[in-house]
Amino acid sequence: MSELRRDPIMGRWNIIDTDEPASIAEFEKETHPQSASKCPFCYGNESMTPPEIHAVRPQDSSVNGPGWQLRVVSNKFPALRIEGELGRRGIGVFDLCNGVGAHEVIIETPDHNRQMADLKQEELVDIIRAFKMRSLDLRGDKRLKYTLIFKNYGLSAGASLEHTHSQLIALPIIPKRVQEELRGSQRYFEFRDRCAYCDMVRQELQDEERMVCENRSFVAFCPFMSSFPFELWILPKDHHGDFAQIQPEQIADFSRILKEVLLRLRVVLQDPSYNFIIHTAPIEIHQREEYHWHLEFIPKLTRTAGFEWGTGFYINPTPPELAAKLLRETALPV
Amino acid sequence: MSELRRDPIMGRWNIIDTDEPASIAEFEKETHPQSASKCPFCYGNESMTPPEIHAVRPQDSSVNGPGWQLRVVSNKFPALRIEGELGRRGIGVFDLCNGVGAHEVIIETPDHNRQMADLKQEELVDIIRAFKMRSLDLRGDKRLKYTLIFKNYGLSAGASLEHTHSQLIALPIIPKRVQEELRGSQRYFEFRDRCAYCDMVRQELQDEERMVCENRSFVAFCPFMSSFPFELWILPKDHHGDFAQIQPEQIADFSRILKEVLLRLRVVLQDPSYNFIIHTAPIEIHQREEYHWHLEFIPKLTRTAGFEWGTGFYINPTPPELAAKLLRETALPV
Repeated sequence: MSELRRDPIMGRWNIIDTDEPASIAEFEKETHPQSASKCPFCYGNESMTPPEIHAVRPQDSSVNGPGWQLRVVSNKFPALRIEGELGRRGIGVFDLCNGVGAHEVIIETPDHNRQMADLKQEELVDIIRAFKMRSLDLRGDKRLKYTLIFKNYGLSAGASLEHTHSQLIALPIIPKRVQEELRGSQRYFEFRDRCAYCDMVRQELQDEERMVCENRSFVAFCPFMSSFPFELWILPKDHHGDFAQIQPEQIADFSRILKEVLLRLRVVLQDPSYNFIIHTAPIEIHQREEYHWHLEFIPKLTRTAGFEWGTGFYINPTPPELAAKLLRETALPV
Repeated sequence: MSELRRDPIMGRWNIIDTDEPASIAEFEKETHPQSASKCPFCYGNESMTPPEIHAVRPQDSSVNGPGWQLRVVSNKFPALRIEGELGRRGIGVFDLCNGVGAHEVIIETPDHNRQMADLKQEELVDIIRAFKMRSLDLRGDKRLKYTLIFKNYGLSAGASLEHTHSQLIALPIIPKRVQEELRGSQRYFEFRDRCAYCDMVRQELQDEERMVCENRSFVAFCPFMSSFPFELWILPKDHHGDFAQIQPEQIADFSRILKEVLLRLRVVLQDPSYNFIIHTAPIEIHQREEYHWHLEFIPKLTRTAGFEWGTGFYINPTPPELAAKLLRETALPV
């Protein structure tokens, strides 16, 4: 069992592994990828993962056997576990609680050698559907307050297994970053009676120079105040706060723009490591009119150093106007 | 000239280099250290840096020539420049201003082959004095609101030159992270009528298990809610909000504990890359009773990934109790 410990000043809760602490030798291990032959995400190795929670597989295939197109399983080394009580308590001036939550892995394809950018649009639709289904399912657990969906691609972006996968972590606390987004968008709404994200979408569509691509339901741009080089956001054009309420037509459009963005990033940045994160409203307040769900891509091109840790500001060496132009104008392979 | 651009939701100001944007090829360059022979921080190469702002050197040596023990110069590739007006303005829904500020480099020794952990206590005293003098001097510039002092050691911690140095950046805006610390410590003060940092010091001294070392004026411990493995804080035992008012006796004690911490980290983690950051009160409100300056060490052992960017929470695989025990109990070279 891990512990959630609260920073008494910053209000940040960190997850601390008190049970199986990493020894000093283990930190080095993170730089060595596993060999494909014993990959737990390949056909025939299904027993190497916890049992599947959800799968896309033919009716005549066996649960937890091969034949699937997509699998969702619990993380074998979870940051948080679903069992037990939260047990909020104090130790002197400090606050902590048990590491209760969900940590799931979405195995996006059985093919060890394809990356997310290689997947067909129909396969991306299955992934987005799995994100939606798992988000909705976890809402039944009243201990959980927030569901985060994200992907780490490449070693420098924190991926520990190379077989393509995304992750879901459901938390018993609304994360600090999400609280800040909610407060910020609420302040904006109070001031202007409009959604800050809708305003950003309109502004980027009008300014054009930071736009990368768009379709019927979604836009992709490098935001004006990008913290990182080639940072890219995908937002629904219409105002929707809750990712989990995405409708079939939007899922199709979302899969199309996601595929295009993955390809453009791969061509321009030569297959960069990246993180993407779906930012959505907390479970209990997903009806709030001031929030707007979106996906943020962060290619791993720079290192976070003392300045960033000390200020919470970022130094970005590449103007988003230049990044967007390169991404927009590159020719995609046919 | 760079631009400071504001995130309309998060209230974060990022520094964006609009003048000399990094091309895609340049991102790779960050992984290759310069050769020592043409190091701008070595004797004889003083003309490769901007002119010195401050130096510790014998009276018979020439300004901007060799012979010095410590030099402070402007950063040749500054994130912010001292010239010009702030020019706050808007573009549609976005806010920006010019990249006005100071960016200085403290060259800690002329010796290319010694690291900060190798320096004698007297040399560390000179460095701390330089931090203090530069901080006080920049207070004369009324455009500046905050002075950040930090060090990036090692490539993975963001150091671009290997010759040992620290940095100072003075900003026209109080950074987001500092605002959060101020608000957090103010909330704590309102609730308990005590400084949150003083309470943490007392608690860590009492609990003992996260203590690393202490002397007359300072303590060093791995904080209860550590975001990172082997995160370590150094705080003055007495309540002081403003680093720049550090007195000679404290400077001596600070140099001693800094040296001990540098050695302990080097022995236990085998010369890790790290960032350290001095957290101090903003220039104009340095008398506020609820803030307490301190230095935070972040050894670079893990990677920040999607979960951390999405939540603002951190997953720490090493309990601070274990990190502190290893750091405390290791034998130092005589």
